[in-house]
Amino acid sequence: KKRFNIALLPGDGIGPEVISVAKNVLQKAGSLEGLEFDFQEMPVGGAALDLVGVPMPEESFTAAKNSDAILLGAIGGYKWDKNEKHLRPEMALFYLRRDLKVFANLRPATVLPQLADASTLKKEVAEGVDMMIVRELTGGIYFGEPRGISINENGEEVGISTEIYAAHEIDRIARVAFETARKRRGKLCSVDKANVLDASVLWRKRVTALASEYPDVELSHMYVDNAAMQLIRDPKQFDTIVTNNIFGDILSDEASMITGSIGMLPSASLSESGPGLFEPIHGSAPDIAGQDKANPLATILSAAMLLKYGLGEEKAAKRIEDAVMDALSRGFRTGDIYSPGNKLVGCKEMGAEVLKSV
Amino acid sequence: KKRFNIALLPGDGIGPEVISVAKNVLQKAGSLEGLEFDFQEMPVGGAALDLVGVPMPEESFTAAKNSDAILLGAIGGYKWDKNEKHLRPEMALFYLRRDLKVFANLRPATVLPQLADASTLKKEVAEGVDMMIVRELTGGIYFGEPRGISINENGEEVGISTEIYAAHEIDRIARVAFETARKRRGKLCSVDKANVLDASVLWRKRVTALASEYPDVELSHMYVDNAAMQLIRDPKQFDTIVTNNIFGDILSDEASMITGSIGMLPSASLSESGPGLFEPIHGSAPDIAGQDKANPLATILSAAMLLKYGLGEEKAAKRIEDAVMDALSRGFRTGDIYSPGNKLVGCKEMGAEVLKSV
Ligand SMILES: CC(C)[C@H](C(=O)O)[C@@H](O)C(=O)O
Ligand SMILES: CC(C)[C@H](C(=O)O)[C@@H](O)C(=O)O
Repeated sequence: KKRFNIALLPGDGIGPEVISVAKNVLQKAGSLEGLEFDFQEMPVGGAALDLVGVPMPEESFTAAKNSDAILLGAIGGYKWDKNEKHLRPEMALFYLRRDLKVFANLRPATVLPQLADASTLKKEVAEGVDMMIVRELTGGIYFGEPRGISINENGEEVGISTEIYAAHEIDRIARVAFETARKRRGKLCSVDKANVLDASVLWRKRVTALASEYPDVELSHMYVDNAAMQLIRDPKQFDTIVTNNIFGDILSDEASMITGSIGMLPSASLSESGPGLFEPIHGSAPDIAGQDKANPLATILSAAMLLKYGLGEEKAAKRIEDAVMDALSRGFRTGDIYSPGNKLVGCKEMGAEVLKSV
Repeated sequence: KKRFNIALLPGDGIGPEVISVAKNVLQKAGSLEGLEFDFQEMPVGGAALDLVGVPMPEESFTAAKNSDAILLGAIGGYKWDKNEKHLRPEMALFYLRRDLKVFANLRPATVLPQLADASTLKKEVAEGVDMMIVRELTGGIYFGEPRGISINENGEEVGISTEIYAAHEIDRIARVAFETARKRRGKLCSVDKANVLDASVLWRKRVTALASEYPDVELSHMYVDNAAMQLIRDPKQFDTIVTNNIFGDILSDEASMITGSIGMLPSASLSESGPGLFEPIHGSAPDIAGQDKANPLATILSAAMLLKYGLGEEKAAKRIEDAVMDALSRGFRTGDIYSPGNKLVGCKEMGAEVLKSV
């Protein structure tokens, strides 16, 4: 039997509910494939602020760092909204990504046939959308120096953030993207703003240079403003997208809203060697927390990504994905994806239905 | 009679066609309100590159600078796509904005009742969308220093761009936005990334501080990733949006695609005292250039913005807006907005129909 250490970081709001459900599904899918898991649950975000006064306690980070993979719930809530920047729950994400060096964020945006009507886009436009956004996650304007607010020579306040990419940072995310595209439909679109930003000029140059190593992948380039339009005009044109941290933040959220069901979407953040971080893309939804109303499918599908990308256990991952499709096909829906004719269930019952199908 | 000097910068692709049509409409609407125009036509962009080897010739700039308002067609084309950055047609826009100091870019995104079906969004989501995006246009990461590609201590290439805003730059665009919101439905949403970028922290602080001077305007704040989602989920929630240069580039293009008819959308770029720059938001469409297929309405509506925001001639502006509505209501459509049951016309005929209605 193979054993893995899994760090569970439930976080805030609906985080604990969806993590508890996903944990059961992960355990069952694993055990059917001969995998055993040791789970260690640790506080992060607002939960950690309340317990020990910081969003990312040392012990939580150590447990995460020493695990084989990390499953995170959600972070944040109204309660801490007025905290200063360094005492905000979201800083946990910031530190986790930086210190785990998870530079490659994989964000699938898929419209499931069962949910094609959930999108605000016309059905014929949304149906069949199936893309993967590869976002650089540990560089760019999120971390660049100089940064801060200072006083200029006129005695006036000036805010500065620096978009900066070194060649090796571009190369390593581009490689992940080329590899990803190769396993999908073989089309990679690199998104930048090379007509204005020098950081993008280097981005485009490096991505272009790598293309010859991946002759089976068809590479194209698009400006970020055009990409924001094309995602709405015809999202099906995209297979794999690669882009920097800030453009990836914007475009991956735009792409998820296009599916119309952000309660369904998982994500993976991978490093060169350490454990990966897997989390649903939705927030902590404090307004429905503790009411058994949350959709656990995004977290369950994040557990599938954990198996596939984090542990290399594709079979167990497939079991989970199939079980989710099965529960949907049997008509079970949480409130966020409910439409008449289906069966409205809560978080736990949805989890139980998926578990049945595993 | 009032006289105004108007600089016409037709530019490339379909630019000359749409400018020639819009000029006639402007002239008629003006003369009915007792205005006379002296037009001066000058090359910019690819046209200027071909003529004199630079995208923004000194003479063209001087004519623009000395005019009362500038009407621009479109810039760019495949022909110059491989040029080095400083010899690309788009640099004309860059220099024009910078040297005319047009810091306030007004980008309406409106779904006309006649065209509600053109959007890829469901009709009930798109119908009634009517927002104005106020984009900061002469600061931020477009112009910040340091910028460029250099070699770091490991001998590796590094690309740098700097997002930088001084307090007065934020204040002046925020004031334009508050004033704009005040004349609309009184709601202003400021979009930033204050949970990550220090430049955004200052942005939010300054915008918030100004709010007390505009008690009749309801101010809210939204992160840019969320804004990219909300524009798709429920675009009708927005009245006026204010944001920085790069976020404005992305979100205003996203918003225009939501209307489904980017051939209809005008823009205004205003400075503190000099002439404003008015242009359609669509590109130069080299694939249909010279075929009398272009939709001239975005340029005609830009001429209306020129009258309203550039010359303070609201009555003449209203004449043009009404004439456009009238031509649409009478069923005339260019190819990009055509739907069965309407009358398909070319650029010139569309112009003639609008002219009739002025
Ligand atoms: C919470 C925030 C710092 C974060 C980001 O901008 O990266 C979030 O929007 C995300 O995309 O995971
Ligand atoms: C052509 C380009 C430099 C320009 C910009 O990014 O500002 C364009 O996208 C726009 O929005 O007018």
